[in-house]
Amino acid sequence: MEMSAVDQMRLFFEPRSLAILGVSRKTGAGSFNILEILQNYGFQGKIFPINPNAQEILGLRCFPTVGTVPENIDLAIISLDRDRVLSAVEACLKVGIKAIIIISQGFADVGGEGKLLQDRIRGMAREKGARIVGPNTIGLVNNFHNFNTSFLPFDKAFSPLSIICQSGIFVVGFPNITGSFGKAIDLGNTCDVDFSDALEYYADDHQTKIIALHIEGLNDGSKFIQTVRKISLKKPILAIKTGRTEIGAQKAASHSGSMAGKDFLYDAAFKQSGIIRVNDIEELNDLAKGFARLPLPKGDRIGILTYSGGGGILAIDKAIELHLQLAKLSPATKQKLSSLIPPWFSLGNPLDIWPSAMQHGLQPMFKTYLWALLEDEGVDAVLSIFLSPELPNQECLDVSDILIEAAEKFPNKPIVAWPYGKNLNELIRKFESAGKVMALSSPDRAINLLSALYERCRFLQKRGVP
Amino acid sequence: MEMSAVDQMRLFFEPRSLAILGVSRKTGAGSFNILEILQNYGFQGKIFPINPNAQEILGLRCFPTVGTVPENIDLAIISLDRDRVLSAVEACLKVGIKAIIIISQGFADVGGEGKLLQDRIRGMAREKGARIVGPNTIGLVNNFHNFNTSFLPFDKAFSPLSIICQSGIFVVGFPNITGSFGKAIDLGNTCDVDFSDALEYYADDHQTKIIALHIEGLNDGSKFIQTVRKISLKKPILAIKTGRTEIGAQKAASHSGSMAGKDFLYDAAFKQSGIIRVNDIEELNDLAKGFARLPLPKGDRIGILTYSGGGGILAIDKAIELHLQLAKLSPATKQKLSSLIPPWFSLGNPLDIWPSAMQHGLQPMFKTYLWALLEDEGVDAVLSIFLSPELPNQECLDVSDILIEAAEKFPNKPIVAWPYGKNLNELIRKFESAGKVMALSSPDRAINLLSALYERCRFLQKRGVP
Repeated sequence: MEMSAVDQMRLFFEPRSLAILGVSRKTGAGSFNILEILQNYGFQGKIFPINPNAQEILGLRCFPTVGTVPENIDLAIISLDRDRVLSAVEACLKVGIKAIIIISQGFADVGGEGKLLQDRIRGMAREKGARIVGPNTIGLVNNFHNFNTSFLPFDKAFSPLSIICQSGIFVVGFPNITGSFGKAIDLGNTCDVDFSDALEYYADDHQTKIIALHIEGLNDGSKFIQTVRKISLKKPILAIKTGRTEIGAQKAASHSGSMAGKDFLYDAAFKQSGIIRVNDIEELNDLAKGFARLPLPKGDRIGILTYSGGGGILAIDKAIELHLQLAKLSPATKQKLSSLIPPWFSLGNPLDIWPSAMQHGLQPMFKTYLWALLEDEGVDAVLSIFLSPELPNQECLDVSDILIEAAEKFPNKPIVAWPYGKNLNELIRKFESAGKVMALSSPDRAINLLSALYERCRFLQKRGVP
Repeated sequence: MEMSAVDQMRLFFEPRSLAILGVSRKTGAGSFNILEILQNYGFQGKIFPINPNAQEILGLRCFPTVGTVPENIDLAIISLDRDRVLSAVEACLKVGIKAIIIISQGFADVGGEGKLLQDRIRGMAREKGARIVGPNTIGLVNNFHNFNTSFLPFDKAFSPLSIICQSGIFVVGFPNITGSFGKAIDLGNTCDVDFSDALEYYADDHQTKIIALHIEGLNDGSKFIQTVRKISLKKPILAIKTGRTEIGAQKAASHSGSMAGKDFLYDAAFKQSGIIRVNDIEELNDLAKGFARLPLPKGDRIGILTYSGGGGILAIDKAIELHLQLAKLSPATKQKLSSLIPPWFSLGNPLDIWPSAMQHGLQPMFKTYLWALLEDEGVDAVLSIFLSPELPNQECLDVSDILIEAAEKFPNKPIVAWPYGKNLNELIRKFESAGKVMALSSPDRAINLLSALYERCRFLQKRGVP
């Protein structure tokens, strides 16, 4: 019986047994030894190192060829010099292996002869019903399966974010490129397994809630668009497309052998099919984390709570540029707060907490104001701008726990924060691990996240998704 | 003899004696006690607390009024309820004080009566030849003088960056808004002392090498432009202008009482007068630090050294969008490196170090490649993209010291870095304190800095400044 396409993708993401062709005897930092990384990662399946010159590497018996392995092999990982890859693939196909990752470089990424060699390998694999990831890839990561073929160790995270990329930097560059992710596939030169294949796997995968794409180029744009149109109704798909400029596109062609295509066509196609396009890696990081943590707002009316009038104006400019609305405070909200302000002050949005805080204490005022905003039915989302105090000296200025409590209490309104000042990074991390508030390093980035969440809500509404 | 305008500004930045009107007896975190902050900051001048209800505060004798202080007072700081400010200013003027900071809120920032009160106070001060900073300000910081009137303590830095702003957030929000600064003045409502006054002080100040402005609005645009046109030839002036949108501008009017004006007019005027306009606080931070640390490039040809083809393409897109050129490697450079690459690989820009690093070791190759780029006469600036390794485990992958050595050895070419991955923030800090390499958290931001440095070079060339 033939395997379904998604089942075959499972061999890549959830192999029970694998062979590594090209295992080095060098180990330790700087050796980039795939076998060592896999073992340290806690991989539970069987590993068959293939090396004709070694009896044993890292405690595992070596086999001279895949043909001499006495058991079934779900997946082969080939990390050999380019000129030895073709015969290695042949050997894998001969023993019926249906999933092959080619790590090696020097194929379509260098053009000419490399491209021809890649085409030949793909043809051979297709004939036998085998799939290839790569070449020129660092392969896959599936943290839920303790599986990692990249040659760099990193912290395992169990995140609902899954990645599809065409450059290993989007895997090994975590957390500052994408944030923590649960699964990743680097398509490299994308000679066979492509975005659509990986998307179909993620679509049905219950461990994947958000998908992030790094696209250098697409070989089959219409198939891609059909696939994302279907999947974007179920899961948000973020995408960074590089090779935006002509020179960038030329380099993309020589990097992963991709045709980058005209950028404006991508832009239009992305919008239509529900892809959320991001412009740089920091935005990718913000949105990947934000979509994992925050509810979608029901509308575009934001409330801003701030210590600083000047900080509020920074946020307003960005909000208006991104077509969000400043919420109008309800009479009930103003009524609640009116006794807390000096007579010369007037309440508005942004809601400047400073005069009240100076009179009545920062923490109690912060909580009162924040609750008032979140209870206001005219407010769909909240941005909180405050100073991140030095701890433990200034504990009495710390409002982070109040924000975390608010997010628990008001789970249907996204709360973003810009905790400016010295302890910004500490607070970003604190909110990240607490889970339901998202702190960002500028008001622009905080507002941009709210805008993306709102756009997602609008897209789903238009498509009639409840 | 009358004081010169700059000498009078010195009373604000370098007072030898000051009176504080409105000193609280509350101390400790959360009390926002100006006197306490000033003492902790190590201020060496005389301080006269004015408080009719206290004999002594924080070890200092209190005076019931400024009139009872038996010595000369360079500067008065008024932090009283709004309705007591006018008579306090009167008392200061009466004893001949020529510099007054009004911290209190509730003036043009709330409009109406507040605005009238502010105008009256300004009129009184002008009559007596006194200058006023504020109202609605946190005042000044001069770290070289151990002087800080803000109500929040922070680390003292001796940075060549000086700030002029209209919101205290640009002072207390350091380091993540502006980076470390040496001097700052918050103009608040800017009823009297304005951007031009502060710029004239900074222009002649040998401790100031870079000036950053936060502008909500200008009352006298043509005077401002005349001033910056002159000073931008000597020192780079960065500016963030808020109230870009109409709603943002309205809020700016109600924050600092400023007229924000049409944004495109600012844009044109800034360009003409040599102001480097930044779009958000992260860009302000990047450029402020970058201009303090890096030499200006002689041209627009950048060389990119990268571990990752995909990372290189991210940088190219941004470089091309900002009109920078990708340097063409000279034949000599290619010759130097040709023996280090596999036969199927070809050298280009971005210079992908990975194949050589895998064969010959990462650190030696990194140094060889980096030196080759910096020695190439066709390369004006370098961006290095590399993985920030986990330390101390992966010390053999650490290239930060090689970059620092390169910056010493090639002091005329700016080097920026994007050390992606887990230890990004640690490496940013390491380079910041080492001083001559600037690391940024994305390739876009790294390229944007190089572009700003190059634009500054072009501006000076056009104006005939050597």
